[in-house]
Amino acid sequence: MSGENCLEGLKILDLTQFEAGPSCTEALAWMGADVVKVENPRDGDPGRSVAGKTTKDSLYFLQYNANKRSIAINLKHERGRELVKDLARGADVMIENFAPGAIERLGLGFEAIKAVNPAIIYCQVKGFGTGSPYERNLAFDMIAQACGGLMSITGEEGGPPCKPGATIGDTGTGMLMAASILGAYVRRLRTGQGEHLQLAMQDSILHYIRNAFTYMERTGKPAPRAGSKTVGGGNPPIGVYPCKGGGPNDFVYIYTSAANPEHWTRLLKVMGREDLIGDARYATPAARTEHRSEVDAIVSAWTIQHEKVAAMELVGSATIPAGAVLDTMELASDPTFVERGIRQTMDHPEIGDYVMSGWPVRFGGSPPALKPAPLLGQHGEQVLSEWLRLDTARIADLRRNEVIA
Amino acid sequence: MSGENCLEGLKILDLTQFEAGPSCTEALAWMGADVVKVENPRDGDPGRSVAGKTTKDSLYFLQYNANKRSIAINLKHERGRELVKDLARGADVMIENFAPGAIERLGLGFEAIKAVNPAIIYCQVKGFGTGSPYERNLAFDMIAQACGGLMSITGEEGGPPCKPGATIGDTGTGMLMAASILGAYVRRLRTGQGEHLQLAMQDSILHYIRNAFTYMERTGKPAPRAGSKTVGGGNPPIGVYPCKGGGPNDFVYIYTSAANPEHWTRLLKVMGREDLIGDARYATPAARTEHRSEVDAIVSAWTIQHEKVAAMELVGSATIPAGAVLDTMELASDPTFVERGIRQTMDHPEIGDYVMSGWPVRFGGSPPALKPAPLLGQHGEQVLSEWLRLDTARIADLRRNEVIA
Repeated sequence: MSGENCLEGLKILDLTQFEAGPSCTEALAWMGADVVKVENPRDGDPGRSVAGKTTKDSLYFLQYNANKRSIAINLKHERGRELVKDLARGADVMIENFAPGAIERLGLGFEAIKAVNPAIIYCQVKGFGTGSPYERNLAFDMIAQACGGLMSITGEEGGPPCKPGATIGDTGTGMLMAASILGAYVRRLRTGQGEHLQLAMQDSILHYIRNAFTYMERTGKPAPRAGSKTVGGGNPPIGVYPCKGGGPNDFVYIYTSAANPEHWTRLLKVMGREDLIGDARYATPAARTEHRSEVDAIVSAWTIQHEKVAAMELVGSATIPAGAVLDTMELASDPTFVERGIRQTMDHPEIGDYVMSGWPVRFGGSPPALKPAPLLGQHGEQVLSEWLRLDTARIADLRRNEVIA
Repeated sequence: MSGENCLEGLKILDLTQFEAGPSCTEALAWMGADVVKVENPRDGDPGRSVAGKTTKDSLYFLQYNANKRSIAINLKHERGRELVKDLARGADVMIENFAPGAIERLGLGFEAIKAVNPAIIYCQVKGFGTGSPYERNLAFDMIAQACGGLMSITGEEGGPPCKPGATIGDTGTGMLMAASILGAYVRRLRTGQGEHLQLAMQDSILHYIRNAFTYMERTGKPAPRAGSKTVGGGNPPIGVYPCKGGGPNDFVYIYTSAANPEHWTRLLKVMGREDLIGDARYATPAARTEHRSEVDAIVSAWTIQHEKVAAMELVGSATIPAGAVLDTMELASDPTFVERGIRQTMDHPEIGDYVMSGWPVRFGGSPPALKPAPLLGQHGEQVLSEWLRLDTARIADLRRNEVIA
């Protein structure tokens, strides 16, 4: 068993760029869909050159376009737009995330494509939803994170709003669209019905911060920022505690749950502070909340004597949830991610061997295999031959007329 | 067109609890899968009582269990475990996220279920992956965020690691599993093949922070924290700027892209600072990076005179990406989310009308309809009758023997 052949035969015409759209189609490509990226012949997906224009594709592009094919089509040319329609006629899915209104101006909007392929699953990712006061606005990941409430609940108490380092506005949106495409596809296999899927990045953010909404509803106040603690502050001890070393990430996360009173007692034993077991100042979550700074001092006095991974192991082995704050380099140097197939090597024709994270879900023990991200236009002839049965002469003519590159 | 009937006929036996598993099956329930939650008869999913034991279900539970059914089965009773096997025999998907090893100890592990249903798609969500040094450890969302690298890149420069307010370890994981289940299901429809899907919350986090990995690879240093800026700091102006009001979320996010030099010029015009157009100190991204604090001061001097939404509109309408930092209460009071169906009313038998975020993807213009989260054991008889064709006498016997409640 493996994941690579799950979506065999699913044809996806992919006009997306940057991350929200490409992360979606990449997930489907990892599971075996035939994803054909349509790119402009000059520079292609602007994600190829986010790190500045060089002759080589950016690592950013490689991350979000593994396992896909690429065809370079000039959409400014009428024959280019016709070619996209021809490809859409035989596709199961078409997806785009251009600026609001752009795809319709190209004559490739939902109605136009539906007219040539009523069974198409036509997908659009935008910053703000149709009907939102900001539906015409541009958005990138951070704009969605600001407008979707996520930055209001991230950062230190009393400090300014912070942006989470994860691109929830982009990849978070892509994952919701990927699941929805497959939902619509399952129905299509059963009924032949097409669908028009639309997703706004701002709306996606709401999906990922539902706990903050429950806090707001319970208290009647906007959910605040809580540093490393959970929304509302949680029950102490909770959050990051400093460890030996003093580096920016020498911290261990310790979580004690109000629902499990044993966590605190077990932690006291791990820390050699049996003297505090039963102490009324700390005996209940409410008492510990009242003495939060003392509790944090007791825990920190112990954690600072240990390296973060050792602290995680000591606390974790007493079945108290604990985690070292690991940085990207520590994760990249941990061989178990490669051994388990979570990080794999992309054999890229220009970049060479590049180790990156693949689809982290294991099918029968292994994540799907990672294949290279395509060079710009690399599969033009292959795709036109396979999808449209165009012969060499026709393809040469398209190239001569700068319809494709 | 609508999303609710996409997964008609897909039967999911759901032994998950809290959020990572339930967010996954809820996504599938929203698209029409028949999701049957198996819960312990005493308290059910512990998510029902995260806010303390009351007679009513928590809002947290409502958020993650919409559109599902519930059956209360005593897994400590041998006949209870047999009943789960009987249900698994007719299910398409079975999913669990118990502590490591627990489901196997119950005799309901992958091999046991596969023996009665070789075509099952059997899914497991854990904190750490099989083969990880921490595979036996407990994890919650925040532990995954610490160990998956996300906290190392969230927070102020020079400050401690912060936890993003979004539950990427939980819901972020759930979304990857939801897409994978549908991937495996598409193949199963074609070939009849079952699958064993496994996903670790730590591994899922890596999927959402891929940009930070590219930073680390380019620079050879761990990706640092960057406050409200993008990984590596981005090109100024970028980040949150203070607005009129002075409240904790009176900020506007402004993003100017290095790839688009027009952003800066347009922003100067919006701010009435045409005098600075062409000024060598600020003319290029490199120059602005060198004079970052002056650039930030120029922008702040303008933003502080405007309310955040006005600032967003002024900057945004000049086609520069901009977003007000909205809090949960502002989002909940914005009627356009309800008008667009992004937030919907759950008609809950005990809580009453509860407005919450539904599945944010629109199918033919509308997100799927929100249905109530189930009461504990609410659908026991219905499910046993529909899935197993048990008659009233058999069901009464199971109840009398405390196999179900």
